Amino acid sequence: MKEIVIKNISIGDELLIGQVINTNAAWLGEQLSGAGFQLDSTLTIGDSEKAILDAFNACMDADLVLVTGGLGPTADDITKPTVCKFFDTELEFCQAAYDNVVALFQRRGFQMSERNRSQAMLPKACEYIPNTYGTAPCMWLEKNGVAFAFMPGVPFEMKGIFIDELLPRIKQRFHAVPYEKRVIMTTGIGESFLADKIKDWEDALPDFLSLAYLPQYGMVRLRLSGRNENAELLHTTLDEQVAKLIRLIPEYIFAMQDQPIERTVFDLLINKGMTIASAESCTGGNIAHVITLIPGSSEVFKGAAVTYATPMKTKVLGVPAETIEKHGVVSQQVVESMATGVRDLMEADFGVATTGIAGPSGGTEENPVGTVWIGVASKQGVVSKRFNFGKDRENVINRATIAAYEMLRQELVR
Amino acid sequence: MKEIVIKNISIGDELLIGQVINTNAAWLGEQLSGAGFQLDSTLTIGDSEKAILDAFNACMDADLVLVTGGLGPTADDITKPTVCKFFDTELEFCQAAYDNVVALFQRRGFQMSERNRSQAMLPKACEYIPNTYGTAPCMWLEKNGVAFAFMPGVPFEMKGIFIDELLPRIKQRFHAVPYEKRVIMTTGIGESFLADKIKDWEDALPDFLSLAYLPQYGMVRLRLSGRNENAELLHTTLDEQVAKLIRLIPEYIFAMQDQPIERTVFDLLINKGMTIASAESCTGGNIAHVITLIPGSSEVFKGAAVTYATPMKTKVLGVPAETIEKHGVVSQQVVESMATGVRDLMEADFGVATTGIAGPSGGTEENPVGTVWIGVASKQGVVSKRFNFGKDRENVINRATIAAYEMLRQELVR
Repeated sequence: MKEIVIKNISIGDELLIGQVINTNAAWLGEQLSGAGFQLDSTLTIGDSEKAILDAFNACMDADLVLVTGGLGPTADDITKPTVCKFFDTELEFCQAAYDNVVALFQRRGFQMSERNRSQAMLPKACEYIPNTYGTAPCMWLEKNGVAFAFMPGVPFEMKGIFIDELLPRIKQRFHAVPYEKRVIMTTGIGESFLADKIKDWEDALPDFLSLAYLPQYGMVRLRLSGRNENAELLHTTLDEQVAKLIRLIPEYIFAMQDQPIERTVFDLLINKGMTIASAESCTGGNIAHVITLIPGSSEVFKGAAVTYATPMKTKVLGVPAETIEKHGVVSQQVVESMATGVRDLMEADFGVATTGIAGPSGGTEENPVGTVWIGVASKQGVVSKRFNFGKDRENVINRATIAAYEMLRQELVR
Repeated sequence: MKEIVIKNISIGDELLIGQVINTNAAWLGEQLSGAGFQLDSTLTIGDSEKAILDAFNACMDADLVLVTGGLGPTADDITKPTVCKFFDTELEFCQAAYDNVVALFQRRGFQMSERNRSQAMLPKACEYIPNTYGTAPCMWLEKNGVAFAFMPGVPFEMKGIFIDELLPRIKQRFHAVPYEKRVIMTTGIGESFLADKIKDWEDALPDFLSLAYLPQYGMVRLRLSGRNENAELLHTTLDEQVAKLIRLIPEYIFAMQDQPIERTVFDLLINKGMTIASAESCTGGNIAHVITLIPGSSEVFKGAAVTYATPMKTKVLGVPAETIEKHGVVSQQVVESMATGVRDLMEADFGVATTGIAGPSGGTEENPVGTVWIGVASKQGVVSKRFNFGKDRENVINRATIAAYEMLRQELVR
């Protein structure tokens, strides 16, 4: 059975002027992948008849077109009349749609307006699909063998209708190919070096698997995924290939699922019943911030001293003023003293510290912008490392944070 | 002069399977609007030669096509060879691109691999545009009067190149319709109440202006914008309308441009030559984190004590153990003691403190999840306030951070 081609059209001026990020398209793609279908493309257009008609015509090579947006009750929502034009039909009153709008207003205890009544006017040729999440209708139409499903653009309505009504219909009507994916999180190695290291393995992957590199602030996510009519073969092949991959780059892998590195460190700390504290200069509290986003972090995180002003490194953390004087504030000696200082102060098993120049100014010849020293203190002593994370301030802060957690992870898996 | 048609093509399987949300397209749309251009459409496709060629062909009715993604050094990045096919050219070594990659690796202190050398292989027909943010090149090509600009998909690289290189080039070459916007930042009032308060003003706005409500974590951004060939009329009308708006809701406005509230507090502190420090429990370092994202924050931010573990509130900040015992850790007495404690410790003009229950667990009848006490200490004494920010942990942290800065702002404008 041939694979079906599914396209998405997202309608709305707000998407094109950047006022709203199109999260619907990504969500639909994820749902379709998980169900064994593939989203071929997403086309985002404005609320204009010409743009909508052009988009419909451009999708006539698809089997199924999922259209989101433009179905609201206000003047800028012109999808319905345009649908009538394209499908050569006209609007007529739909009792089921009207009853749905009435029921919704009753549940919410609001008065209905004449404007809402117009929401029950639907193209004659369409099959009405109930939307129990809002007043905009969901519609199904076909032309020359191409099916068009129309959903509202409000994400929570769209998601509800898709899961309740459309996905079952799509599954019943079209053939799905089993899909499975694995995500492997790596850090400490750049995309191109990683690619070199795993090239032979990647080249030898069976045809039905594909590998994607998704680099992000100091880490690379690898996604190995495939589709195969034989779901068991797919599953066992993924198992085998992932096992081979792990043997190639064990030192760079921090998680076997899509999660941030602080989550891995959190899990290790919970398992070992150990705690951490941070002493932060250039990261400005971000090491503390990211771990405290995790529910239950109070089990493992004692606290942080963000010693942004230099004298606070001495006063709060006990870094000797002479050490700062002699080696400079961005130095191995200072970061190590900060790490041991915060470990003592916060009575934690590990102290992690950062000092550096996040930029955009403040760089010197010896320590250009982006230079960061990171140190980790434990009862075994202190380790420290010098990095350069480039010249973008936010990037420096994020990458230094990830590197600090990677150093902690190294200590924890030692 | 006719308006130009600009289209975006976003390339990447990860966008179609929903692993990554396409934020680039929205960002480009916003930048183009701001510069007096309009994004006509965004087409998101996978890493396949056929899809890319089809997309290029579908854009031949545009004047300018902005392509993002698919330029990395790995096997799944097939944009460059496909570009060669479409533009009937071939790859050749580009010394300037190579030098850029070499310089980048030197700055970061990494070894270059042969694979990175391949990143300097560019289509002969292209104009090379330097990317100082990463190793992927930026390219400009033309075919039958349609200009194509290729940028990497990594958002921070794409943004840097677009602002530094492409936008100036687009402005020089194409006619923009004067566009102007004003952003008014409000806090302390919900979207629908705000809409009620300003309804009459909004209804009376001239046709060429439009208002958008952009609610976000405890604040609502209002964007009043318009396009008009008569730039002066546009400008003076905006001036008048904004002046009217300010008179309607003076107490809720914290900034007249799109900036976070910590930026407003930063500016006030700089102007007054004053400093702050934070003592953070439930916000976990986020108050420190957001202000230290601002370049130059070391002028006003002395540091933070993230006293996540309760005993650290006593040890680091000097909160009397009896106070905690008697009133509980989430209490007015504790937050006020934290605020004065950190003000003394960090020798700052203002100490701001938070203690609360970010959730999802840990709530009590008296202090349900979402309860946060915030205190601000200055030489005039301490003020404090109790809030409830709901049940979502990240939301609680973000809204508490914004509320803390709003309390600081109130003290600073007093």
